[in-house]
Amino acid sequence: MSKIKKVVITGWTHGNELTWVFLIKKFLKHPELVKKNSYSTQLLHVNPEATRKNSRYVDQDMNRSFTKENLNDIDSKFYEINRVKEVYKELNIGKNIEEEFIIDMHTTTANMWVTIIITNANKLNLQVLSYIQSKIKDVKIIHWRGEKESGTILSCYKYGFVIEAGPIAQWVYQDSTINETEEIIKHSLDYIEKFNDKKEIESNDIEIYKIIRAVDYPRDKEWNISWCIHQDFQDKNFEILKKWDKIFKTIDDDEIVYEEEDLYPIFINETSYYEKWVAFFLTQKEIIN
Amino acid sequence: MSKIKKVVITGWTHGNELTWVFLIKKFLKHPELVKKNSYSTQLLHVNPEATRKNSRYVDQDMNRSFTKENLNDIDSKFYEINRVKEVYKELNIGKNIEEEFIIDMHTTTANMWVTIIITNANKLNLQVLSYIQSKIKDVKIIHWRGEKESGTILSCYKYGFVIEAGPIAQWVYQDSTINETEEIIKHSLDYIEKFNDKKEIESNDIEIYKIIRAVDYPRDKEWNISWCIHQDFQDKNFEILKKWDKIFKTIDDDEIVYEEEDLYPIFINETSYYEKWVAFFLTQKEIIN
Repeated sequence: MSKIKKVVITGWTHGNELTWVFLIKKFLKHPELVKKNSYSTQLLHVNPEATRKNSRYVDQDMNRSFTKENLNDIDSKFYEINRVKEVYKELNIGKNIEEEFIIDMHTTTANMWVTIIITNANKLNLQVLSYIQSKIKDVKIIHWRGEKESGTILSCYKYGFVIEAGPIAQWVYQDSTINETEEIIKHSLDYIEKFNDKKEIESNDIEIYKIIRAVDYPRDKEWNISWCIHQDFQDKNFEILKKWDKIFKTIDDDEIVYEEEDLYPIFINETSYYEKWVAFFLTQKEIIN
Repeated sequence: MSKIKKVVITGWTHGNELTWVFLIKKFLKHPELVKKNSYSTQLLHVNPEATRKNSRYVDQDMNRSFTKENLNDIDSKFYEINRVKEVYKELNIGKNIEEEFIIDMHTTTANMWVTIIITNANKLNLQVLSYIQSKIKDVKIIHWRGEKESGTILSCYKYGFVIEAGPIAQWVYQDSTINETEEIIKHSLDYIEKFNDKKEIESNDIEIYKIIRAVDYPRDKEWNISWCIHQDFQDKNFEILKKWDKIFKTIDDDEIVYEEEDLYPIFINETSYYEKWVAFFLTQKEIIN
């Protein structure tokens, strides 16, 4: 890899995450905000049908649909499976993997402020993240390993990341979240331009939260959630979870405690993970040079 | 009116407000939490089909459907219009208006903590509210006048109120919001029991926010929202809004200011009001003895 030739900025993969709507209008009206000399920028609205239907997705989660299996499924009746093939063509995915960088915009209801997710801890990704953290101190970074076959759009790329901005309710425009997302995009685009121009930029150590495993809500016999996140645990993303800390509360007002090793929880009580059997993820903190 | 004979507790009027789900399970398992000696308690799940479809509503807002017109519409294909007739029967609405009290549970994405809405400032309602405020200091009260023909379930009753608990994202179980809602219900049921038993309870002055008018988002030619609530204004419910305070921001980063008389904003950026052409409501504060 010598140069990045295209940066892809994707959003509205989930029809109920509106931050992208505001930013895409802004970028289309003010293209100078995302245009650089050394590479092209492509903006893409990933799930337009979900948007029209005012729902998160039509038939299945778009951001779990980018798999080889779906790409080869020529007879599917599922909107997202067919949309994957279109997106592959529109973005020319996989043809120039060494020369492309993706920024995929999302939001979360979990209290995580602005978080970046990478699935590949390669040098360029880490350099971009180090640069972003030098500009915006409190941005947290999550490394979601083994996600190559996860079906996210990010899994189709070598370079790039997901922005998870929050906390924000679904179907809401929130000025602060829009601004924070825009700032991450700005610094990323700036860094890639400097990288292409071979400008030397000092890299600092970066702190990364590596996902170890997911923890589900206790469920009743019909698999409905019947216990909720304990209020002492709600919003405590990135704060160390220790043995005997309360994590769930039942309808009998009983409290369920954590009984395992010290780890850092993330995505606590994210509503879109209810259907994915996830109450929160546990991570390990690592420092990478 | 001498006695309240039945208290109706309704929830899940909107399929994406889950607080009720947790509480209904709790009340069904622990009926002593809502049972009193001097009156009966009836729990009702208002929009089960929206719940099954995992959406806010099926064809139209259930909480704008309780109108005489809908009640007389015998050929409607709209689920909510037909459901109104069932709810009328199940609750026996309108037959014993002097002897019934309703508590209708809702949640909001706006930063209003626990808020109570009344449409009728009669003596019993004000007494209950005064009692609740003596137990939970920071509960705010909103008076929504002229809502008799609004189609809310509350508009079918003389006595009772709506709980709007938040801020909470839609489709989320949140322990604190569940607890706050449960506490309001508990104190209301306690007060009504004391009232029926003719126990003397001292009433204090109460502060009420009377809705004056709604303010919509600026819209583009296709009526889409193209400006968002300014981040200096977001979350500032119940804080006085003064001339020249910033209220909106455009995609050009222009700021729109407020230019009218001092009033108190509520429901700022509530997502379910986007489709109702409401960015926020303006209220006047009044003290009632």
